[in-house]
Amino acid sequence: MEFEVIKTVGKARLGKLRTPHGEVETPVFMPVGTNANVKLLTPRDLEEIGVEIVLANTFHLMLKPGVEIVKLHGGLHGFMRWNRPILTDSGGFQVFSLPKIRIDDEGVVFKSPLDGSSVFMTPELSMEVQMVLGSDICMAFDHCPPVNASHEETREATERTYKWALRSKKAFHGEGQALFGIVQGGLFPDLRKKSATEIVSIGFDGYAIGGLSLGEEREITYDMTELVVEHLPEDKPRYFMGGGSPDLILELVERGVDMFDSVFPTRLARHGTALTWNGRLNVKASYNKRSLEPIDERCECYACKTFTRSYIHHLFNRGEFLGQVLLTIHNVSFMVSFMKELRKAILNDKFQEFKSRMLEFYSDQTTQIFSTEEG
Amino acid sequence: MEFEVIKTVGKARLGKLRTPHGEVETPVFMPVGTNANVKLLTPRDLEEIGVEIVLANTFHLMLKPGVEIVKLHGGLHGFMRWNRPILTDSGGFQVFSLPKIRIDDEGVVFKSPLDGSSVFMTPELSMEVQMVLGSDICMAFDHCPPVNASHEETREATERTYKWALRSKKAFHGEGQALFGIVQGGLFPDLRKKSATEIVSIGFDGYAIGGLSLGEEREITYDMTELVVEHLPEDKPRYFMGGGSPDLILELVERGVDMFDSVFPTRLARHGTALTWNGRLNVKASYNKRSLEPIDERCECYACKTFTRSYIHHLFNRGEFLGQVLLTIHNVSFMVSFMKELRKAILNDKFQEFKSRMLEFYSDQTTQIFSTEEG
Repeated sequence: MEFEVIKTVGKARLGKLRTPHGEVETPVFMPVGTNANVKLLTPRDLEEIGVEIVLANTFHLMLKPGVEIVKLHGGLHGFMRWNRPILTDSGGFQVFSLPKIRIDDEGVVFKSPLDGSSVFMTPELSMEVQMVLGSDICMAFDHCPPVNASHEETREATERTYKWALRSKKAFHGEGQALFGIVQGGLFPDLRKKSATEIVSIGFDGYAIGGLSLGEEREITYDMTELVVEHLPEDKPRYFMGGGSPDLILELVERGVDMFDSVFPTRLARHGTALTWNGRLNVKASYNKRSLEPIDERCECYACKTFTRSYIHHLFNRGEFLGQVLLTIHNVSFMVSFMKELRKAILNDKFQEFKSRMLEFYSDQTTQIFSTEEG
Repeated sequence: MEFEVIKTVGKARLGKLRTPHGEVETPVFMPVGTNANVKLLTPRDLEEIGVEIVLANTFHLMLKPGVEIVKLHGGLHGFMRWNRPILTDSGGFQVFSLPKIRIDDEGVVFKSPLDGSSVFMTPELSMEVQMVLGSDICMAFDHCPPVNASHEETREATERTYKWALRSKKAFHGEGQALFGIVQGGLFPDLRKKSATEIVSIGFDGYAIGGLSLGEEREITYDMTELVVEHLPEDKPRYFMGGGSPDLILELVERGVDMFDSVFPTRLARHGTALTWNGRLNVKASYNKRSLEPIDERCECYACKTFTRSYIHHLFNRGEFLGQVLLTIHNVSFMVSFMKELRKAILNDKFQEFKSRMLEFYSDQTTQIFSTEEG
């Protein structure tokens, strides 16, 4: 994988990732395809929308369908019939989010959310699985501590993340695949700095900022990210894990982040909320009942070019899943257009203008957690 | 609307319907779009699949979103963005399937399944609504009695159906819209004959056979249909309401029926059953877990050209709705191809061969009721 920084304005960067499955312009937003599908969308929907890269969850796919089945298809691209880049997480987020039976430096024993059985996850296993999945970008296995962890707990998780990063790098030999390291350190500046320095010392193809956007105050998210970015090399991509609302993206692009992922647009769509150039729109609200307008008149997606708000309101009102399908198409399209406009703003030295304009519509600073996996 | 019989082999007919929204080759299968959408499919999916005409339910649309909303869109075609022909039922099936507060010659007072309120339905209202919906083919308002009704009850429903057909015709003045009459008569030959004669005497653009495929023995379905068809004019289309499994279609095309509708392919798809040229396939069955085959190797649909059984099995296994989307695309495609092959068989004087071959795979004579509305 190659990464090129094309332009920098302040800390904000315009870049290009070159992967075996094509190029990705950064800053980029990656929709989440937990179970080898972005919920309700076909790969051709994603292509039409202009999605350049999707995320899939290693841990989920390891349990179901299992690596053997994906291997039969020659990897995840063949399995889900998506020919553009894929990034897989490592299972480290599940260390945070799933019940654990045991965790030590060796690895984690999870209770499988599918059948309650024990699953022993190690850096080596995570690498092995991601190599079989054949994702373009793989993530080192990390220990993501909860946001309310003490300094002592967080220090332990951070040190473990370093050890696991070393083992991940050692075990990883995916041909043509890139491996990103993950910086942890919770909400503690000293640990964030320590983690960034340690992870960078190992040397990865890119660096992720993990363990944030988990419910902490937004200012802390920004500060921690800023601190980490200071310790990351200029010539490698920076990926903020599990965050992707427009306001968060704007703030973090400004602080030098290149890549984002979140279930935000897809989950909101399924609940009837559209993202528009004028902010969020509750499609289910009664004022949309008679509206002959599209969801967003500036949007070029299939849903907006074809249907009225009234029709989509009706589908939601009647519990018709087609409403969710159409709104998912729209919201992912919006994120693609939003990132395109954001990149254009950097290119034309208008990032601050773009940011101010968008924050008028997206400044609710939601503390809702939109994780890196679809539930 | 014009109807042309192109070829007849025995009683089986090859025909062409010309409507304001395009031509329909018969025998035809119509997918059901109860709430102004064929569940999980966009209009462009339907177009790609090659669907020529869809059915929508007048009663449902009258309640939600209501005629006024559809009128704002210039009719149902504009509302659901489907530019090919639409057939609407009249609400008569709901006389059979919904709780009634009162029914007499004037009309029916229903308890709304949406909010429990009273809805007074009459032939005049049904016509008024269908004229606003702007469907290419409208149905006269009828009284569909239950399959276990006595001779007396059935006679009453049949006589009422005649009176309502007269009133429907009188009230109907939809420009460019066709109006079909409905023959009732339950399982009683004398009443079927009486109803057919009466309805034909009024004069409609086509004739439907209602009140069958409601759980009665298959032989009775066939016999009643045969009896009714004997009393229908040769030069008008014949529509069997609410039945559309391949075996039923084969038996009834042989007896002179031209049009079918059913939720059969769409509902089966949502439950994980595929229709294939080798019979039904349970996609959820474990023997599909590792199959790299498409659902049906003879099928040209997007799902079959793109995905393995293994992948679709995985989607169902994980409760991903995309599995239902893909299988719905496939099953509706199968029905379109099945009808195409059936028409070709009539054209090439090979209907009996085609029928025998298909009945090897579709002869389970299911007594399951696949109604004319999606639930």
